[in-house]
Amino acid sequence: MSKRIGRQTVKLDNQPVIMETASIAGIKEGQGPLRDSFDTVLTDDTLGEKSWEKSESTLQKQTAMLALEKSHLAQGDIDYILAGDLLNQCVGAHYSVRDLDIPFFGLYGACSTMTESLSLGSMLIDGGYAEHLMCLTSSHFCSSERQFRNPLEYGGQRTPSAQWTVTGAGCAVLSSKGCGPRITHVTTGKVIDKGVTDIGNMGAAMAPAAIDTLLAHFHDTGTRPEDYDMIITGDLGVIGSDILQELMLGEGYDIRENHRDCGKLIYNIEEQDVHAGGSGCGCCGSVFCGYIYKELKKHNLKKILVMATGALMNPMIIQQGETIPAIAHAIAIEN
Amino acid sequence: MSKRIGRQTVKLDNQPVIMETASIAGIKEGQGPLRDSFDTVLTDDTLGEKSWEKSESTLQKQTAMLALEKSHLAQGDIDYILAGDLLNQCVGAHYSVRDLDIPFFGLYGACSTMTESLSLGSMLIDGGYAEHLMCLTSSHFCSSERQFRNPLEYGGQRTPSAQWTVTGAGCAVLSSKGCGPRITHVTTGKVIDKGVTDIGNMGAAMAPAAIDTLLAHFHDTGTRPEDYDMIITGDLGVIGSDILQELMLGEGYDIRENHRDCGKLIYNIEEQDVHAGGSGCGCCGSVFCGYIYKELKKHNLKKILVMATGALMNPMIIQQGETIPAIAHAIAIEN
Repeated sequence: MSKRIGRQTVKLDNQPVIMETASIAGIKEGQGPLRDSFDTVLTDDTLGEKSWEKSESTLQKQTAMLALEKSHLAQGDIDYILAGDLLNQCVGAHYSVRDLDIPFFGLYGACSTMTESLSLGSMLIDGGYAEHLMCLTSSHFCSSERQFRNPLEYGGQRTPSAQWTVTGAGCAVLSSKGCGPRITHVTTGKVIDKGVTDIGNMGAAMAPAAIDTLLAHFHDTGTRPEDYDMIITGDLGVIGSDILQELMLGEGYDIRENHRDCGKLIYNIEEQDVHAGGSGCGCCGSVFCGYIYKELKKHNLKKILVMATGALMNPMIIQQGETIPAIAHAIAIEN
Repeated sequence: MSKRIGRQTVKLDNQPVIMETASIAGIKEGQGPLRDSFDTVLTDDTLGEKSWEKSESTLQKQTAMLALEKSHLAQGDIDYILAGDLLNQCVGAHYSVRDLDIPFFGLYGACSTMTESLSLGSMLIDGGYAEHLMCLTSSHFCSSERQFRNPLEYGGQRTPSAQWTVTGAGCAVLSSKGCGPRITHVTTGKVIDKGVTDIGNMGAAMAPAAIDTLLAHFHDTGTRPEDYDMIITGDLGVIGSDILQELMLGEGYDIRENHRDCGKLIYNIEEQDVHAGGSGCGCCGSVFCGYIYKELKKHNLKKILVMATGALMNPMIIQQGETIPAIAHAIAIEN
């Protein structure tokens, strides 16, 4: 009995519940407009660790522990944890979950990890393979700068189209029962590469993947933009969001009214000098598990589509002259 | 209706079929004892590319295309592709699948990727979310050396406990119907870190994860070693295999008779000067999708357990003084 309703979309009959979330944000993120929506705002972005990679791992672990605490569940109640991050070999996730006594699936979806984990996680719940599971991701400005750009000490200039990697993490606990917002559809992205080569303009590289998945979702489900209270992208930022809105208009879908981007929401773009906005796995992670989830719980949002995008290159392959492939995974949520 | 039969194991009622596989191996691997079991043995490990990273990506793509061809399916018949590799940000997978018109989930399980993808893939088929999907992984000696150890040009000495990264790839096509070997159980590993710090001895770092998952599988399913014709690990190599066998004996399970390790099978260990044996995602990938699958098809094997292990560190975090966490994912297959 197939649950597929189109080439890229499945419909979840049992509609897994997002029973709880946890979000932790860094100092700069705590100075932005969403400050009150995070469970915790860091006062020390090192989290007491001696390297930025360890800081990010500790951030991810604290977020997972907070999600357990908020959902009144023990580690033994969690059937799986699905997690990943931007660091080489996903060490943010691996060193955070090694202290957890929970079966683990490691994912790499770059900045799409929050919705990739929710996609796979919701199918595992819906299919009866798990009663509770956790979806976890993070990013850290300082570990990302070192790995993808330059060490902080270098003091490199940023191009105007560059985005600012969010220091933050999000964890969602999915359940097979209970009350709360429910995941109804999963639309899985293809890897899309339109030949963008500028790693200082990730929004432009990722927008085509967002368009591809959004069109697939509308096609497969027969919905239109106005069917959603909000269509939320992960970290397209100012430039990528403009591209998405304009090209979707060309495809006959006007999403300008209800499209929001976590990378635009998380900062006061001008005042906080973040150029084209926020980025990183933790951008969608902390905003979805913070602001968006709280708006769902308050019933200010009834039906939404959440779609995080990821750029799938690494610095070496770009130095070898390659272009930037990207992906977008979407989930529909109803209250 | 839960399909879980224990803390780490699910039972698949619909038993997805492994309808076809493809395996491609490098020059050195083609000189080993399994030479006749690979679909293709490379005559040029560069695959005509100008960088080792691109060579690995092309290797992965050729393996996926071969699997499609052998299974007489078109890209449009494949509902998902689940893939990953060892390279930073999994660029082997991302640059291979960008030319495929197939929804994609990116995984990172290090050398456990073959069974991680088969684990998630078989649940997606079993649950009705896909009719056909592909599980794909690769490794390449030259890209791994550069990234995890030293560039080849450096000519570094290898410690006796070191393993040789397999140049190879494997792709399995799972189906909801048809004939062939069936996946019956999935036992998902936890991240286990017993404090091993020697990155020249991956077998020792990964063996504790293999023990943990194997004990969980026997416990959850009520099976014992003698219930399986073969218990196959991915790349524990000579040292890790000895540790696994000895410590399992201490736990009351004698697996010495029917345990095999892909990292020991793929090379003539002494003659080919590979020290402790083969390793890499492509080790289990090419051996499972080559030799093991063909033995299943010939009915020389009836019931087996396949468990690939992965070491989840990166070089930077080891330089920061960290230990090596590892994981093992097991799937049971019946003919």
